[in-house]
Parts: sequence; C-alpha cells; structure tokens
Amino acid sequence: MTSNINFKKLQKELIFIPLGGSGEIGMNLNLYHYNGKWIIVDLGLGFADSDLPGIDIIVPNINFIIKQIKKDILAMVLTHAHEDHIGAIQYLWSEIECPIYATKFTSIIVKAKCKEYGLTDKIKFIEITSNQTFDIGHFNITFIPITHSIPEMNGILIDTLKGKVFHTGDWKFDDKPVIGEITNKQMLQDIGKSGVLALVGDSTNIFYKQHSGSEGKLGLNLEKLLQKYNSNLIIITTFASNIARLTSLIKAAEKVGRKLILQGRSLWKMYAAAKESGYLKESIVFDQKQIKNFKRHKLVIVCTGCQGEKLAMMNKITSNQHPQISLYKNDVVIFSSKIIPGNEKKIYSLFNKLAEMDVNVLNEANEFVHVSGHPSKQEVQTMLQFIKPKIAIPVHGEAIHLNEHCRVAEESGVPKTLNVRNGDVVIIDSNEPRKIGKVEAGHYIIDGNLILNSENKMIKDRSILRDNGAIFISLIINKKTKTINQLSIVSPGVLEEHLDHDILSSIKSNILKAFNTLSFLDESKLKHTIQFSVQKHIKKLLNKSPLVTTNIFVV
Amino acid sequence: MTSNINFKKLQKELIFIPLGGSGEIGMNLNLYHYNGKWIIVDLGLGFADSDLPGIDIIVPNINFIIKQIKKDILAMVLTHAHEDHIGAIQYLWSEIECPIYATKFTSIIVKAKCKEYGLTDKIKFIEITSNQTFDIGHFNITFIPITHSIPEMNGILIDTLKGKVFHTGDWKFDDKPVIGEITNKQMLQDIGKSGVLALVGDSTNIFYKQHSGSEGKLGLNLEKLLQKYNSNLIIITTFASNIARLTSLIKAAEKVGRKLILQGRSLWKMYAAAKESGYLKESIVFDQKQIKNFKRHKLVIVCTGCQGEKLAMMNKITSNQHPQISLYKNDVVIFSSKIIPGNEKKIYSLFNKLAEMDVNVLNEANEFVHVSGHPSKQEVQTMLQFIKPKIAIPVHGEAIHLNEHCRVAEESGVPKTLNVRNGDVVIIDSNEPRKIGKVEAGHYIIDGNLILNSENKMIKDRSILRDNGAIFISLIINKKTKTINQLSIVSPGVLEEHLDHDILSSIKSNILKAFNTLSFLDESKLKHTIQFSVQKHIKKLLNKSPLVTTNIFVV
Repeated sequence: MTSNINFKKLQKELIFIPLGGSGEIGMNLNLYHYNGKWIIVDLGLGFADSDLPGIDIIVPNINFIIKQIKKDILAMVLTHAHEDHIGAIQYLWSEIECPIYATKFTSIIVKAKCKEYGLTDKIKFIEITSNQTFDIGHFNITFIPITHSIPEMNGILIDTLKGKVFHTGDWKFDDKPVIGEITNKQMLQDIGKSGVLALVGDSTNIFYKQHSGSEGKLGLNLEKLLQKYNSNLIIITTFASNIARLTSLIKAAEKVGRKLILQGRSLWKMYAAAKESGYLKESIVFDQKQIKNFKRHKLVIVCTGCQGEKLAMMNKITSNQHPQISLYKNDVVIFSSKIIPGNEKKIYSLFNKLAEMDVNVLNEANEFVHVSGHPSKQEVQTMLQFIKPKIAIPVHGEAIHLNEHCRVAEESGVPKTLNVRNGDVVIIDSNEPRKIGKVEAGHYIIDGNLILNSENKMIKDRSILRDNGAIFISLIINKKTKTINQLSIVSPGVLEEHLDHDILSSIKSNILKAFNTLSFLDESKLKHTIQFSVQKHIKKLLNKSPLVTTNIFVV
Repeated sequence: MTSNINFKKLQKELIFIPLGGSGEIGMNLNLYHYNGKWIIVDLGLGFADSDLPGIDIIVPNINFIIKQIKKDILAMVLTHAHEDHIGAIQYLWSEIECPIYATKFTSIIVKAKCKEYGLTDKIKFIEITSNQTFDIGHFNITFIPITHSIPEMNGILIDTLKGKVFHTGDWKFDDKPVIGEITNKQMLQDIGKSGVLALVGDSTNIFYKQHSGSEGKLGLNLEKLLQKYNSNLIIITTFASNIARLTSLIKAAEKVGRKLILQGRSLWKMYAAAKESGYLKESIVFDQKQIKNFKRHKLVIVCTGCQGEKLAMMNKITSNQHPQISLYKNDVVIFSSKIIPGNEKKIYSLFNKLAEMDVNVLNEANEFVHVSGHPSKQEVQTMLQFIKPKIAIPVHGEAIHLNEHCRVAEESGVPKTLNVRNGDVVIIDSNEPRKIGKVEAGHYIIDGNLILNSENKMIKDRSILRDNGAIFISLIINKKTKTINQLSIVSPGVLEEHLDHDILSSIKSNILKAFNTLSFLDESKLKHTIQFSVQKHIKKLLNKSPLVTTNIFVV
C-alpha cells in the first residue's frame, strides 16, 4: 500500500502521523512533518501474543518511511530509554539511517542495544540535556524534563512557524520522584501561556481515577516492609528499566542495613547505564558471588522476571534452579510491578509455587509495593489545564484508552480533540485541524534473526502445527508399474509413532486406497487426493485437522 | 504410580481424597471412603493453558480410581450442574461405571452432555430433591440447598458412624438470590449444633474481603441500565450456565418492555434445561428469527462469548459476522461476567473492537454488572461460625487460595485445619485428623476424540512446532553408488518455500555436505548426522530451532 496523499503539496503544513502506539500498547513511533522535512519521535517495540506463535517481539511497520519519506527524514528524537520507545531502533535503524537526538542516559542504553547489531559506529548520536533548546531544520525543539520511572524522561516541545506541539512522552506528576527532576509545574504553565497548538499525550492510565502515587512514598513503605520481615530473606522483582524503583530499593536496603544483590542481565545493564550517567552514585549493590558472605536476613535480592518470564531469575529461583539462592518458609517475595494484561497466568503460577513453599507473596493486589509511571485521569486533566492546547491528540494506548482520553479532553474544555490511530495523517492547523487520510501502518514480527511481515503463511502454518500437529507423507512411485514402492509417514504433534500403530496403519491403508482411485499418474493430482483423503480420515478418526504434506518421488 | 497405602487396613476409617480442584481452579473431584466403600462427589473439567498447545479441555487423572478402588465405588453424587463439577462425566464415566445421584435440573444437564457420547441409557440416575436424606451403603446423605448462580446447588451432608462431613460445593449467602432457595441459615446452624466433624469448603474468593453481592440487587441495576440506554440496542454476554443471571435479565427486560433474544448453543441448552425443570416459567425469550420483528431499542440480546472465545457469539457480533445483528454508535454491550485470569487479552481485544465502533462497553471494572457465585472471606467466616466444624479442609482453589482459607479458618477458631492437595489421603478422625500419604493425581488431556496422558511427547512436539516450525527431509539413496538420488525438503512454519530459495538451497548443500562426511552407509547414523547438521545450520542462520525429521529411502 502506497498512500495517495501528495505530501509535496502539503510541504508548508505541520503534519503528525502516529505509526505505532496509537490503538495499541507498545511500539511507540510518531512522525512530525514541517517544511518538507520529517522528524521521528521514538521507535519502540511491542510484545506479541498467542496469535503470533513463536514470536516474542513485534516492531512498527515502517514501509511508509522507507518507501515515501526516507530521504526527507532529518532525525530521530527520543523521549526516554524504555523498550516501548527505543526497543525497535536496533532492528529498524538501518532502514532509516538518520542521526539520533537523546540524553546521555538514553544514548547509553540505545548504544548498548545497538552494539550487538554492529550499529554503534554507524549511528550518529547527538547528546541533549534536559531543558536544552536546539534546531533540527525548521523544527525548534526543547527537551522538557518530566517525571517518569526512568532517568532523563523528556517531553518534546516542537516549535514551528505553524505553531507549537507538546509531545509529552511517558509522564506523571510526583513531588518525590526519587530520580529525575520534579516536574516543573511553573515551566509547564509558562509553556501553556506561550500558546500551544497541540498536545500529543500519554493515555495508558486514563481509566485510573486516583493519582498515580509517589515513588518517594512507595520507597518509605518498601523500607517498612524490609523492617517488618527482619529475620527473613527478601526477594524483590521489578522491571529492569524501572531505575526509580531500583533507587528506592537501594535506599531502603541501606536504611535497614541490608545488602542488595542484583540478579539478571537486564538489571545489571540498566544499573551500569545509570551509574555511567551519574545516578546511583553510592551503592551497596553486589552480585551473587557475595551472597555467601552475608546472612540471609541481611540481604535483599532484586531480580528480573516480575512478569513470570520462563527464562528470568524470579522463575529460576522459584523453581529451585538458582545455584546460590533458595527460598524457605516465611521468606518474602515482593512483586514490585504491575501485572501486565496477558501475563496473569504466568504470574499467578509463580504466586502458587511460592505459596507451596509457605513464602509470603506481596504484590500490588495485597500491599502498597508499586506505583505507575503514567498519569491517571486527574493528572491528565491538570496537564491539560497547564498546557491549554487548542488541540488534544491522545496517543500511547489502545482504542478504549484513546476514546476515553478524548472524552476527558473534551470535558476539560479543549476546543478540539483528534482521535487518531496508527497511520492517520493529521494536519495540525489552528483553523482547521483534521485527519486527511491514512498511510501504511501495522507491525513487523521479529522471528529469530529475521524481520518479517506479519501477514505470513509461515505464522499461519505454526498455528495449525500448534493446535493439530503435522503429518508428513513421503512415497516412491514406480512410473512403469504404477505402484507405490515405498511409503513413510511421520506425524509429530499428532501421534506417538511408536505407540499408535493401529492409527498409523489405518492412515497407510487410506493412502493406498486414495492412490488406487486414480486411473492415471498425475503427480499434483495424486498429492491433492492423498492429502484430502488423509485429512478427512484424521478428522473423522481423531477429530483433529493436522497440516498434511505429501512428497512424491517418481522412479 | 500405585499408592502403597493399604486401604483394606483402613476399612473402618472415614477417608477423604481430593483428586481434582485442590491446588487448581476447575476439575473438582472428591472421594469419600467409609466401611470399605467409596462415594465420588462431583467430576468436573478444567481448561488448558498455553502449556498444552491444541488442548482446550483437561479432566482429572483417575488412575487411582481405575486401578485401586473401582469395584468399591457405590455412587457419584453431584452438587450442581457447572462444568467444573460435572463436565468430565461424559469423558470418564465409562471408566468408573456407577450410579449418579443428582437433582432433576443437574440430571437433565448431565444427560444432555452424555447423550453425544452414547451414555444416556447406560448411566443410572437417581433423582434427589433438595433437603432429601437417603442412604448410599453406610453413608447417610442429605442434600442441603445453598444459593449459587445455578438452580439446585446442594451442599452434601455426609453422615457416617465416624462423624459428619459437610461438603459445601459452590455457594454464597444471598437474601435475594433470584433463583433457587435462600440459604436456610437456621438449618446450617442446626447442622452445626448437631456436631460436624469436618467442613470441606469452597476457597475460590477467599481473597475478596467484601460480600459477594446479591443477584437480586444486581438485577435492579441491570434494569436501570436497560432504562438508561432506552434508545439503543443492548447486548449482554454472560456465562451460559449462569441461570440466575439469565433470570435477572429476563425479569429486567420484561420490566422495561424489551424482548430478549438468546444467541449461542450453550445458552439455549441451559435455557431448555431450566424450563424443563420448572424454572423460567413465563418468558419473553425469542431466537434470532424474531429480531426483524422488533425495533432495535426494544431488544436485549443475550449471548455467549463473555470470555472472548473466538467461535462464540459475542466475537461473531463484534466482528460483524452475524447475519442478523449489527452494532452501531452508542449501542451498549454489557459483559455481565468475571474476567477469568488468562482471558484478559482476548476480552480486551473485544473491548477495543467495540470502542472502535463507539459502542458503550460496560463491564465489572466500570459498572455494577456482575456478582460472583462464590463466598468471600466474610461469608466463609459466617459459614464456619454456623457449622462449627472440628476440622476445616479447604478445597476448590489454587495453592494461594487454600493457604489463605486455612489461615482464615484458624483465625476463626476452627481447632484443626488440613491444607490438602490433589492426591492427599486424609483420615477424618475426631482425635487425630491427618494426611497419611498420597495417591496418583493430575490430569488427562482431551485431544480431539482422544483422552491422553498429559505427559506426552506429542504435546512437547507441538510446543516446538508452535515456536519453531518443522523441517521434513526426505531422500532416496542409491545403495550401490552411495549417492543421493533425490532430495526433498518441506518446511512449514520455518520458511515460505516459494520465497526463501536461498535458505532452502543452503539447507540442501548442508545436507549433501553432511552426507559426504560419512564413509559408510548406516541409515540411523545418516539420519542423526543430517538432523544434527541441519539443526545447527538453521540455528546459526535463523536463530530458530525447528523440529527436524529425516526419512531415508534406500533403493
């Protein structure tokens, strides 16, 4: 699909196109156009669900960029270092090839990820500090520091001759944020007073009525919990990228005199980046080699795997597969994280395994152990009051979130709201803001080393294989005698070949019967006949519909 | 595994063995033994998760029954007609072969299910009414009516010379239950006064602090909602088996002058059973043929699919695949049901599709549209106060629920609690109640027409096929020349054969190379060499690990 919008004719327009994250959670990718040139804000990844068997990671479909605007892209600007905002760079940057503007901390994280893909030297990084103003072509840009759960999150204020857009990124209000600067409310109000045309903002938690909560207050409760269970080992699992939480945990551990052991590669990576950027200056952090040097009740183990991931540390520890860490009765495991929809079963399975060991499981359902990094409805309302945009464009959410955010913006008196989805082409104009059409959008899938289109026969085959298995038939046919010389059947996922002799023989008879119905030898017809007949046979016999393929050798 | 417990020596003991539902949600199956004989209480099914690809339904492993006690089973007694209490009968009854004691409504449902399996005439049903007392061998049994979300739910009071056990089944307290009798609290207190040795009870909602809520009150709110959206079509999806909800909906629709259209096979089945048993006497219920005869805002459509099931009506309607029903802006869809853990993604996907159509989505998160049929903590406490058992044995829950239920029972002053899991053998004795060992427990899987062991190579193969696909290699080798005459590769779920020529050729070269490393022709060694080599090649090239099989014809 190539869009039939003539962008040349729109050269003087301020245009916004969300290519990822609008109509879904994850994969944030937003484009801004002015004066014939484009900038990209964020390039994140998303996680696949069971509709994409064998796939973990998905990234935005950037065919529109590649086919239509690549040569006019000036730069990529990054709000912060979370996977859903930067995680696709390593996969897709080579198709875009532009400089990247980001803060020091964000650059370190992105560089580390791109290193494995041999991109570090190719990408030109321009380091920006919070509050800095700079030009990219005719875009005048200012990084506006806002609180989130990771250091150096910046909203992007984009100023053009057509007007100002404030692209919030992920944010919250928190007077005790533990890391990063406290959102400067006066500065936001000043931006508002200077006249903002459009606010493009985070919708993740628009259904939450109460304030997102303060990381600082949470830290105090975590400290209390460490004190309460003062004779037991405490394990805390959280998102590796939640540097605010890690900071809270280090502070709390220090206060109660426990040492902190980090477990999990991604946690160490984030920790290293934070230290390199000047965060977490003092520390009581050790690796697992030090475990034996401390008493169990003098340790806090912080580990990956809060979503129940099979290969992560929390699952390893819970399954007694960690060489240094064992859990005993009355020990404590804290899930200091959100239960992300889709992961419930995996997480509850951990809860149950821990319950079987009589370990105390604390999580957001039964204890104050997590605050979100995203704004609730009331925080969104406050932001709208500060910025006073003429147009509200909700992004970063599924359809239900974007609809609700539009409703909230209207209620809050924003004159115009635009309810956008990935691919929508939006003219940001003070007189007549509007959607004028659509460009290609969607996602690619990351399958092992390959980046593939999501509409893929291979993926459909995997769904059939998953549910029904496969029957692979191979036979040798003698051209002269018109007989089957040899016949072999393999049936992974359908039968246990060494057990189900009867079923296997019945399939063989079925094939011979199908073969005998043909009066002349037509390979493709034979294939089709055999497959159809076996499929019908298996459906009747087992009520399953395996993928059946036939290979015919003619000798 | 055969248990080494000598049940003959325990002939005079009152024994309890949970074989399903203790340590998991679903698959309830409980055994009681006295005087050398056994009764079975309930025989339910459970739902598989993604660890069992291609499997929807699981049922309890009854090897212990088949191998050790079948001849001593007197009967099966059913508490009520929910799938997790009766859904395995159609699959497993033939292995047990005993009479079934159940109420009229429950019998109708079970018979309908067993009909498809040709069992209706084989099974002897003994119809019991609520409050009836009868003997099965030396078990004296009384059906105690308790409120739940389906008609004729009965707790089972089992009286033996060793003492009384009250097996609650699924229950709640509700003074306005819409269907079924109001739980007779006086009767429960009287049972308590008569002296109960053990209470075996429902743990599902033990983490809920507030009362489960009244179906009657819910009905009033549903009525209000039908009034509020009086100019729009209203669709309500709920569990087919929630006859209480269906009754509430019929009443509400009648009150506001709407007709009710049922959509979905399982709903019609339940509706028919309820009518046959004398429930839902008057009704305003129609099928889809009648839709055209009424105005949209004079209809309430009640349909299946509240858990986002792909093949159910709610998904069909949402995807615009229903011939008679279309949704428009401002219409209303009510999910009058719980979001069952594991189904979140499927359900949210429906919410989003509906949001895209600007349909109002009401669900338990944003409106009072559902109450649970299970007791919360405070209701469990009240029950314990009424029954005053010497022993509490929580069942019907995962490990976390059973642990918590034990804690609540201890807090409530129950002298002894036993925290049991499937397979535990429990001596219910007034002096020394105790677990004395374990028998085989677990689950079977229902795969198409087959009932299989869950530890199955076929299932493991499906997981590999799902994530990585398969490569089937077939070749003809000439014995004399020691050359490969013909070679064929199929790669479903790995490659698109018509696209990935390069990869396919590289696999072929790889096979030839592997073949050439062998100095003599050993079929099994050749197979192994080729498979190993191709696996390594694909891992390096694609970072995937498909299932590779090789078939060798020697000519």
